[in-house]
Amino acid sequence: MFMNELKAAADQIQATLDTAMGPLGQTPVEQGMRYACTGGKRLRGFLVLETARLHGLDIKTALHPAAAIEALHAYSLVHDDLPCMDDDDLRRGQPTVHVKWDDATAVLVGDALQTLAFELLCHSDNGNADVRMKLVSTLAKASGAQGMVLGQAQDIAAETATDPLGLDEITQLQANKTGALISWSAQAGAILAQADPEPLRQYAQAVGLAFQIADDILDVEGDATKAGKKLQKDADAGKATFVSLMGLDAARTKAAELVDQAVDAVSVYGERAQGLRQIAAFVIERDT
Amino acid sequence: MFMNELKAAADQIQATLDTAMGPLGQTPVEQGMRYACTGGKRLRGFLVLETARLHGLDIKTALHPAAAIEALHAYSLVHDDLPCMDDDDLRRGQPTVHVKWDDATAVLVGDALQTLAFELLCHSDNGNADVRMKLVSTLAKASGAQGMVLGQAQDIAAETATDPLGLDEITQLQANKTGALISWSAQAGAILAQADPEPLRQYAQAVGLAFQIADDILDVEGDATKAGKKLQKDADAGKATFVSLMGLDAARTKAAELVDQAVDAVSVYGERAQGLRQIAAFVIERDT
Repeated sequence: MFMNELKAAADQIQATLDTAMGPLGQTPVEQGMRYACTGGKRLRGFLVLETARLHGLDIKTALHPAAAIEALHAYSLVHDDLPCMDDDDLRRGQPTVHVKWDDATAVLVGDALQTLAFELLCHSDNGNADVRMKLVSTLAKASGAQGMVLGQAQDIAAETATDPLGLDEITQLQANKTGALISWSAQAGAILAQADPEPLRQYAQAVGLAFQIADDILDVEGDATKAGKKLQKDADAGKATFVSLMGLDAARTKAAELVDQAVDAVSVYGERAQGLRQIAAFVIERDT
Repeated sequence: MFMNELKAAADQIQATLDTAMGPLGQTPVEQGMRYACTGGKRLRGFLVLETARLHGLDIKTALHPAAAIEALHAYSLVHDDLPCMDDDDLRRGQPTVHVKWDDATAVLVGDALQTLAFELLCHSDNGNADVRMKLVSTLAKASGAQGMVLGQAQDIAAETATDPLGLDEITQLQANKTGALISWSAQAGAILAQADPEPLRQYAQAVGLAFQIADDILDVEGDATKAGKKLQKDADAGKATFVSLMGLDAARTKAAELVDQAVDAVSVYGERAQGLRQIAAFVIERDT
């Protein structure tokens, strides 16, 4: 049932992205943009739609912001997969953009997808100019040099550091690298409704960390075919992860505790938060 | 006199960028962002300030948009200089970001500078939410897959094409690659003032093309020390340019004609367009 909802949301987000990219031509960069925006779980976009619904908004209001966060996420993956970054050949079970085309195309595809994300936030369906402005400024903050990119920079720095990171440092790094976008996604509904985002911020903080711990667990014991990407990368690289620092059992326990915290944080919304409770549970149960 | 004005504008834009990047830390990415935003002629930022002044606006209204276009321009240079793109070691007389740090840092520096550009457009000094929204949506359009990035993609495609580009194709390519940002810069003052941008659009179209022809002339006969970057690159690569297609004399004549057209386009503003006339002339007289 929940998986059906997730799939339905993913389809609507895909359709919104397809429409937005409709005017694009057929250069490798334009083909690469469509390619990079295909597939994926759309968890971030689902959070946008679900928190908008929670505030009684029409889904039409939330589709472009949901598409925007997925375009931004796609940009970060395309650049993260580059040979000079994480050097990944496989993503969502398909060759990465720089493998299918080349590095230059992948740089430009990521660049243009970031731009597309901000363009999507300007769409008139999203509400008045104040709301759209708030979407832009908060996403810029979440994704830039004090958000996601800072986390990526900290991740690169960690690779060459003499001492491996401790638990607090990994938590901080991940709060930036993956947490900031998840947090934006969960708060987007409140921004759209001009409502208090605080319960959603607390929810997202717990879900974001649980998501990353689950990723580290998947990296150790997941099925690479299902995941559609290379696993065991962190262990091979000798990188500190939640699993290497806490052990598998404690990591699992911690992730489950975080899901409980997330569920508590949205109890204020009552029955309407059912979708958010399900996605919190899904985050640590997924196999991709 | 005009050079003093250009220098004074550049200093104010630099100060705005410095303040915006003040909260950043000292990771290589954050250092690289400051580094990439240092120096340069600030022609685009000057156009923003000058067209705002033309509409009677306080300079305070235009400083963040001027800083934004310079941050966006800096991002495009950092990515364009990457080994997988144009592979340039020198920029503004200094080692490029990937030479001073590494490729991964340069990718992230460019990514974060693009984000910073959109963040700067959200600044409350820039006018009401409608104005700021318009700045964001128009800059996204000018810089994305139907503007600057399209031009870069066309440029890459041209390198591997069997037939060299003709004059119409080069003109179209450059209108995207460099023209779109120049056009945005010149129209920014009208957007800020909620005035008709049409005369400025015509001005920018002529100035943008003159700028690129002058660049091609500089590439052939410029002084690499003054230019602060490698020259003769296009000739060495066998790429079609305005000079290779038209010859040096005809290119010079065409650039001068375009400056006349640009000057005509802003005659509607009378004396207040003095700065725009000077910058149009400067574009084809500069030696860097």
